[in-house]
Amino acid sequence: MLTAEIIAIGSELLTPDRTDTNSLWLTEKLNSIGIEVKLKTIVGDDDARLEEAIKDALGRSRVVITTGGLGPTEDDITRKIAARAMNRRLLLNEKVLDAIRTKFLKMGRAMPEINSRQAMVIEGAEVLDNPNGTAPGMYLEHDGRNVVLLPGPPREMRPMFENFVQPKLAAKAGDVRVVRRILRVAGMGESAVDERIAPIYTQYRNPQTTILFNNSEIEIHLTAQAKTEAEAELLLDGLAGQIEEKLDHAIFAFRGEKMEEVVGLRLAVGGFTLAVAESCTGGLISQRLTEVPGSSVYFMEGVITYSNDAKIRSLGVDSELILKHGAVSSEVAEAMAEGVRHRADTDFGLAVTGIAGPGGGTEEKPVGLVYIALSDDAHTEHRRLMIPGDRNLIRWRSSQAALDLLRRRLI
Amino acid sequence: MLTAEIIAIGSELLTPDRTDTNSLWLTEKLNSIGIEVKLKTIVGDDDARLEEAIKDALGRSRVVITTGGLGPTEDDITRKIAARAMNRRLLLNEKVLDAIRTKFLKMGRAMPEINSRQAMVIEGAEVLDNPNGTAPGMYLEHDGRNVVLLPGPPREMRPMFENFVQPKLAAKAGDVRVVRRILRVAGMGESAVDERIAPIYTQYRNPQTTILFNNSEIEIHLTAQAKTEAEAELLLDGLAGQIEEKLDHAIFAFRGEKMEEVVGLRLAVGGFTLAVAESCTGGLISQRLTEVPGSSVYFMEGVITYSNDAKIRSLGVDSELILKHGAVSSEVAEAMAEGVRHRADTDFGLAVTGIAGPGGGTEEKPVGLVYIALSDDAHTEHRRLMIPGDRNLIRWRSSQAALDLLRRRLI
Repeated sequence: MLTAEIIAIGSELLTPDRTDTNSLWLTEKLNSIGIEVKLKTIVGDDDARLEEAIKDALGRSRVVITTGGLGPTEDDITRKIAARAMNRRLLLNEKVLDAIRTKFLKMGRAMPEINSRQAMVIEGAEVLDNPNGTAPGMYLEHDGRNVVLLPGPPREMRPMFENFVQPKLAAKAGDVRVVRRILRVAGMGESAVDERIAPIYTQYRNPQTTILFNNSEIEIHLTAQAKTEAEAELLLDGLAGQIEEKLDHAIFAFRGEKMEEVVGLRLAVGGFTLAVAESCTGGLISQRLTEVPGSSVYFMEGVITYSNDAKIRSLGVDSELILKHGAVSSEVAEAMAEGVRHRADTDFGLAVTGIAGPGGGTEEKPVGLVYIALSDDAHTEHRRLMIPGDRNLIRWRSSQAALDLLRRRLI
Repeated sequence: MLTAEIIAIGSELLTPDRTDTNSLWLTEKLNSIGIEVKLKTIVGDDDARLEEAIKDALGRSRVVITTGGLGPTEDDITRKIAARAMNRRLLLNEKVLDAIRTKFLKMGRAMPEINSRQAMVIEGAEVLDNPNGTAPGMYLEHDGRNVVLLPGPPREMRPMFENFVQPKLAAKAGDVRVVRRILRVAGMGESAVDERIAPIYTQYRNPQTTILFNNSEIEIHLTAQAKTEAEAELLLDGLAGQIEEKLDHAIFAFRGEKMEEVVGLRLAVGGFTLAVAESCTGGLISQRLTEVPGSSVYFMEGVITYSNDAKIRSLGVDSELILKHGAVSSEVAEAMAEGVRHRADTDFGLAVTGIAGPGGGTEEKPVGLVYIALSDDAHTEHRRLMIPGDRNLIRWRSSQAALDLLRRRLI
């Protein structure tokens, strides 16, 4: 496999507030054409350090990609330093200069003098057009290395890479295509997942399997290599099928979809409608569901009943029920689900009540105790959860469990 | 100022899914004691590349910090390679070995043989205890450089840095303290903010001012250097005061607080209660408000009325009003705010109706048109917004504008 290095340039990337995220996108793209990223460097607007970083990278890796530092100001040193690191001259390119001038004219302005710096091109480099900005990129081959200079802003960098760089590098990389598939799991613990599927995936080196735990969600990443994408997809189908057999309905997404997308699609396809009543999740479930474009077709109404009074008045929960069992109880969760379904006249009612903390817990009902309930016209059911973690994690896991309860009903 | 480099180690950090975030936290801590981060390297479990990275860093920077690669497996190469890069031996430390054995015994297990690898210590290094894991860290001085080896998991790395490393490095850095303050702005555009405050902040080199645009929010970061924290705070007070004079109530946070925290605090202090009615934001406002611990004191109820029917039934919006002006109109926004306030019997009612897209826009009412309204028992007011961006951005900006409307009323 070809190896690549990415150098992200800009002093703002060395502050506590900013990190280089371009490289994640680039890594995905590079991997897909069979190129592996072996090292990343983040360097400020610092001549000596950048020169050393570029020279080191050229000494080690076949593909060297820089992002950032192509702007018009003094601080934008990538052109100059890259030229110096490769011992090449930096030449004014009249065609590029004209193009930049024209871009400014179209905005009704004269080109500021400093922007002429962006027309300086490294000797022997191919200029990469930038439809979304003034800084052109560059591509050159130097001592058998492929060197790519890209602008920092993602909306300029991404199309430039996809349109010009990716086809070139794919040709160099030859007949290797890498395809990744993300399976997502709900309702099972990490070790339970690994225990069931490790006997399968450890038998394969291709596809390669990685299990990731993000924000309490389990993702299974399968990466297959083959001569064509179709062959890689076949390898993925094979392994994904075996994993599905072991995990069954615990896998809710086979292509990285979000839970709210999966649930939304099932509701839309079935022609069902939904209303949601939330206490401790405070609107998170409704917010997730309505983040999906087109959700107005199935999402009718949400109610956030934080107070007991609101539960009684807005959802018709019997005050006796709250007195007897408490607001955080299976009885109240079910009454909330039924209440919101009747009120909004929908096919399904989904409800959550629980204690997200940090305060409000008792010995009998500690922080993390959550009840979720689902109601349709045939029956109402609930689940009791004990969720570890902080307030945000408890809220997020509660929302995930509630959506998963609905998803399983819709299967 | 002392200069530092951070090397993050682990092949998983070179995939499209993971990035090194430890360095952001470390940068903040290093800056606070007057140490500047000049370069970051992310390298896989790759002997040659890691050795080169460590040697390069030692050649350039006074402080070199590695994170990760201290685990017990073959892949955890940091100890071995760091020793090699500094030409020092790796020695078994019996005391560390005993400590690891004890940790396992406390969990009721015998120490797996591979964990003995974690008791190998670089000759001359001080061992940094790890209360949250088995991998100890290391600290040593080598040729005038300060070298720190930290574990990768944040919950192990952070306390180790704070307890052992930070005091040591602060002593080296001498009498420099750096304090940062984050002001957050709502209801003004980027260029308007910069126009008003650039004449002020450009006069100062200390504090230094950076304006950041994150997720449509404007942040003004002020960083002051002085011999003591108190002196640095005084410098910050001076500049922040002048900036406040120019921006007035557009600054909603002086210490980086979130909008929902600021609004929540004002509600709590005033003893006011709130109910929220949302259409296009789909629960986002309620979700943000209830993310704040203790919000149940002031947040009474939220209603997400996606359908017209729900607006009429749940909020008492007059169906004639919807017929005449449409669901996305100032009239309906105000009726929603009044409706939810009456229904929940709260001091304030806050409402949003709009078109978040991607579908649903018309020439007259395009995607991005949003009305927000606020009602109390004295009067009801609304704002009309035209928000550029995609669905998520429109939803987020709408929620921010609505919360800001309430914040300004509470001043």
